[in-house]
Amino acid sequence: MNQNELKEITSRDVDFAQWYTDICKKAELIDYSSIKGCMVIRPYGYAIWENIQKELDRRFKETGHENVAMPMFISESLLQKEKDHVEGFAPEVAWVTHGGNEELPERLCVRPTSETLFCEHYANIVKSYRDLPKLYNQWCSVVRWEKTTRPFLRSREFLWQEGHTVHRTSEEAKEETLKMLNIYADFCENILAIPVIKGEKTAKEKFAGAENTYTIEALMYNGIALQSATSHYFGDNFAKAFHMKFMDKDNQEKYMYQTSWGLSTRIIGAMIMTHSDDHGLVLPPHIAPMKVTVIPIGKNHTEVIDKSYEIAKNLKLEGISCTVDDSEKSPGYRFAEAEMRGIPVRIELGPRDLEKNTCILVRRDTLEKVEVSLEHVLEEVVKLLSDIQNSMYFRAKMRRDEMTKSATTLEEMKKLSEQENGFIKAYWCGNRTCEEKIKEETGITSRCIPFEEDNQEGICCVCGKKAEHLVYWGKQY
Amino acid sequence: MNQNELKEITSRDVDFAQWYTDICKKAELIDYSSIKGCMVIRPYGYAIWENIQKELDRRFKETGHENVAMPMFISESLLQKEKDHVEGFAPEVAWVTHGGNEELPERLCVRPTSETLFCEHYANIVKSYRDLPKLYNQWCSVVRWEKTTRPFLRSREFLWQEGHTVHRTSEEAKEETLKMLNIYADFCENILAIPVIKGEKTAKEKFAGAENTYTIEALMYNGIALQSATSHYFGDNFAKAFHMKFMDKDNQEKYMYQTSWGLSTRIIGAMIMTHSDDHGLVLPPHIAPMKVTVIPIGKNHTEVIDKSYEIAKNLKLEGISCTVDDSEKSPGYRFAEAEMRGIPVRIELGPRDLEKNTCILVRRDTLEKVEVSLEHVLEEVVKLLSDIQNSMYFRAKMRRDEMTKSATTLEEMKKLSEQENGFIKAYWCGNRTCEEKIKEETGITSRCIPFEEDNQEGICCVCGKKAEHLVYWGKQY
Repeated sequence: MNQNELKEITSRDVDFAQWYTDICKKAELIDYSSIKGCMVIRPYGYAIWENIQKELDRRFKETGHENVAMPMFISESLLQKEKDHVEGFAPEVAWVTHGGNEELPERLCVRPTSETLFCEHYANIVKSYRDLPKLYNQWCSVVRWEKTTRPFLRSREFLWQEGHTVHRTSEEAKEETLKMLNIYADFCENILAIPVIKGEKTAKEKFAGAENTYTIEALMYNGIALQSATSHYFGDNFAKAFHMKFMDKDNQEKYMYQTSWGLSTRIIGAMIMTHSDDHGLVLPPHIAPMKVTVIPIGKNHTEVIDKSYEIAKNLKLEGISCTVDDSEKSPGYRFAEAEMRGIPVRIELGPRDLEKNTCILVRRDTLEKVEVSLEHVLEEVVKLLSDIQNSMYFRAKMRRDEMTKSATTLEEMKKLSEQENGFIKAYWCGNRTCEEKIKEETGITSRCIPFEEDNQEGICCVCGKKAEHLVYWGKQY
Repeated sequence: MNQNELKEITSRDVDFAQWYTDICKKAELIDYSSIKGCMVIRPYGYAIWENIQKELDRRFKETGHENVAMPMFISESLLQKEKDHVEGFAPEVAWVTHGGNEELPERLCVRPTSETLFCEHYANIVKSYRDLPKLYNQWCSVVRWEKTTRPFLRSREFLWQEGHTVHRTSEEAKEETLKMLNIYADFCENILAIPVIKGEKTAKEKFAGAENTYTIEALMYNGIALQSATSHYFGDNFAKAFHMKFMDKDNQEKYMYQTSWGLSTRIIGAMIMTHSDDHGLVLPPHIAPMKVTVIPIGKNHTEVIDKSYEIAKNLKLEGISCTVDDSEKSPGYRFAEAEMRGIPVRIELGPRDLEKNTCILVRRDTLEKVEVSLEHVLEEVVKLLSDIQNSMYFRAKMRRDEMTKSATTLEEMKKLSEQENGFIKAYWCGNRTCEEKIKEETGITSRCIPFEEDNQEGICCVCGKKAEHLVYWGKQY
């Protein structure tokens, strides 16, 4: 790739979908494989996922969760045990019918999610209230046979974590459900710099088999909503279907209460579509595999190169990942490459800078340049990284808020949704027919009933009856 | 489980296979699932795997390797591209034939190993010698439809890492193959305390599609050999089948040279069968999820309990994982439980110990007890952990050496193999018919041609002709 080829990405304002694909490819996050809908996650993309894993895994373990590995296969009969669950998933699973040359006595699906496997396991190992709670998580890949696929956002196989817990009481299980939603929200906002709306899904949009589904909803640059993580409260629905009983303190056999919660590589797509621009990827410093790149200018200028490595060494000693790009490519090409890869801070150092005992810091989010003294480069980089992290969040939040409108009638919703994508806040009576009417008329769906409700009374934007909830509506990925 | 139930494991000298299964179950490493041959790895077993991952991943990254994620599916046509490879794997793969309700146009297998996927990807992304080497690894699960299965040792799905690299020259690829074998050997010996023989597989035993397969071979307590990790040099075999070409410095299009190397959860089985005993699991301190457990004795004795937590706190401050078991179970039960789980050091503290300002340290490997002053407990634990790690290695090595015999004729091999399991060292002419004859007559197979050959000349133990190699032979898992 020459510099032009590298820079040749579609503008996000011209063709957002193409721009997104260009970034995934040119920042070397993914490659396509010959299996439709299954992608290769390349080293740079995978390093981002590893950082996401590290951050989340630490939070899970700090809150008492343990990792396990369940089988990747679910027998057809096991999948069918919970009625709503099988209806939700059976149409989109991949079926294994043969092992070697032999047909299997019962076909197996590749897990689309692992509730059924965890249920079977918990029924096996939990006997008494002393065995509760069990707070398990697993990092794995799952398969859903989607018709249309896009890197990270919707692929037939994707990586994720799925937490599955069982509890003695419904209160405890409900508390867990919300605790994990809050961990996701905190992670998205503070690490990925993605502002989210926390809320509950309507009955129509909830997970197959759940009593309640909670979600964090983010708004992408183009105004399309993205469900970024979900947390489900199952009550004892699965417990009844899978005979998951335990002996309680009062010597009564009772059903366990259950939750599950998950976040997937989809979140990488969310991060791209929240922050990136026409120069390529923009990564929040907290998740960037490489926080700083030093680019020496002036061919074979030994002192410049030595100084570049010295700066990198000092940054690394402070725990800031840093690389030196002293390859033979032109400075312009190296700048463009660092921008494409979304490295948060670029340090440019040339012979004239060195004479002045200065260097140039370029922040990736705004591309602003600032000259700093070489003596203070470390402090300046630390400050700049922190500033980038905060600015990215606030810029995204401001944009999200600007793209959030209110409507009081279906007519208004229609008009708003035709003008521009974004969240629409509107009151709703709680009736499914009104919810479906909105979808029919506007194409948008309920995203969530936000936790932070206003205290106003409202009337349903469709039927005009007294509203039960204020709801966020929007188009979704 | 009461204390007796916990202790009721089969003796390893009575029924080794049953003893092994008992440990896997009672130390809570695994549970069976309803899918034959697919196990659940429980939190304690998975924590061991996470420690293995951490150690290996660090070594991989320090030597320049990057992690990626490949699809889990391989199309039938892709699998068939390399002739030897497909012959080796096709009979034991799981086939996906349907996505949802639709039959797939081409069936897909769940990866039994990912050479073919990496080849396809490398053919896509490597254009020039500047793109080489590519040093990729992935952590994932793979599926092989085995007839008989056993926890960790042979399961239809198992977790592993598979490294796949491509290089400009054959020298570089060969160097990589051996470098990774050495990393495995170092890891097994220094972290898992498993002594290994490094060597090369004979042509008959090598990997399907490889030019050379290198292996590290360990000997279990019962004298059965276990191939603990392998590293393969492919030459340009796959490169030719997959059109993996690059433009070299001299402007000539050339084929890449390739390696692959892997280590799986099987190594947990090796660790169990090398170190554990009739009291349960014995874990080397370097890999144990919990290094120390403090067990306060004397019910509700506040000072004893406080002191126990203080000891644990101080150990944790030094980076030594430590737990306090002050549950209501009897001391004997708690001791047995700590032994079953293989926690390297147990600290017993009762009211009388506290009066004397001492406590008892019990080392799990030998169950020896020693009284130490509470003032020196930290240093003593550190010393003891290091001693346990070393002793475990040397005990295993001594036993391995004792179970390694030499033979000069087929008759001798037969006799030795009937007496006792173990390694048999014998010269071999290099001829496949002699190798097969040994298997027919004795049931044992070649494990490896060791790197550390003796310099003696020998004659083939079968045909009596001049020998090419000294070979380790043995029964294998």
